[in-house]
Amino acid sequence: MKLYIAPGACSFASHVVVQELDLPVEVVTVSLTDPQGLHKQVSPFGRVPALQLDDGTVIAENTVILPFLADLVPGTSLFAPAGSVERAQIQSWLGYLSSEVHTGSFRPINRPGRYHADAAQHDQVRASGIALLRAALAPIAAHLQTRTWLVGERFTIADAYLGVFLGWLARAPGKPFKDETLDAYYLRYQQRPAVKVAADAEVA
Amino acid sequence: MKLYIAPGACSFASHVVVQELDLPVEVVTVSLTDPQGLHKQVSPFGRVPALQLDDGTVIAENTVILPFLADLVPGTSLFAPAGSVERAQIQSWLGYLSSEVHTGSFRPINRPGRYHADAAQHDQVRASGIALLRAALAPIAAHLQTRTWLVGERFTIADAYLGVFLGWLARAPGKPFKDETLDAYYLRYQQRPAVKVAADAEVA
Repeated sequence: MKLYIAPGACSFASHVVVQELDLPVEVVTVSLTDPQGLHKQVSPFGRVPALQLDDGTVIAENTVILPFLADLVPGTSLFAPAGSVERAQIQSWLGYLSSEVHTGSFRPINRPGRYHADAAQHDQVRASGIALLRAALAPIAAHLQTRTWLVGERFTIADAYLGVFLGWLARAPGKPFKDETLDAYYLRYQQRPAVKVAADAEVA
Repeated sequence: MKLYIAPGACSFASHVVVQELDLPVEVVTVSLTDPQGLHKQVSPFGRVPALQLDDGTVIAENTVILPFLADLVPGTSLFAPAGSVERAQIQSWLGYLSSEVHTGSFRPINRPGRYHADAAQHDQVRASGIALLRAALAPIAAHLQTRTWLVGERFTIADAYLGVFLGWLARAPGKPFKDETLDAYYLRYQQRPAVKVAADAEVA
């Protein structure tokens, strides 16, 4: 199998899970700015992450790739059995992070041009995006106030995904959202050996 | 179990699946504009659809509720077995529809105020949203040119979800995207008995 990623992109979550589970997956780095990038030929949506199976089938979207990778190791603590409530809770967080945090909030911050054709308005679109991000992160911070990880007091694929956005937040200019609970959580995330290995590989 | 929906909202997809599978689920209609709406007390994110299990647990997000509902009927043609490539393909479409079509495109069209504080700019945000919608629907239309349904030539939960957005498109002012393939697909969708039953129940 091949996992297509771009350095610093949301594909980092899938990269972390490959490391956490020590999966036999080749991680292929592509450039998102290259219009002929390998991922465009591979992914049905021209995006990362994309997971190419041995038979050539391509799976897209973190909300799908993360469960798929975890299911390669039945009984892993990173996920939960099919049909269990915990599995649905983990999937709920994946869905929320994908739609509300990534597409809903970071996209207007990172790509304001998609929401207004006039560049003079982009600062205002970004400001609106930051307000959306605060609103999207507030329930996560509240949830984590009494918890170490998102679901079941153990690191799961939902945490692998949340860490991506807290990394983006930490690197965002002007610290748009400051929260002690999230800061402590992100420190725990960064200290995981698998996260360190994936981060070092993407920088190298 | 109780499924919380709002008339015309994206919860329609879950409503359709309840009807397709004739599930023992009570469909509870709430108003999204009522701040004390029942769903706000039930859903962790104050949104529909929300599925409340018999033990009180609440599951949010169509990308999670649709698979959960389908898995109540093992072997249903609406989904595919755990671990299969078809299941991952169906989940990929759910993820794409949620993030790119709903949050990514319809949200700036329907809620431009979230992306720009100045109401004088909202028409421009909407125009950008329509361009995003065209780009998001193009690969779907291309995919459907040689297919009856999204995956495996049968109606699945991915189709239950896509139909919601084609309904929104059909009712959008000015017909922002006209495509014969999608029109024919939406006609097939509307002709399904379960879709008719769900649609009639939401209007009543």
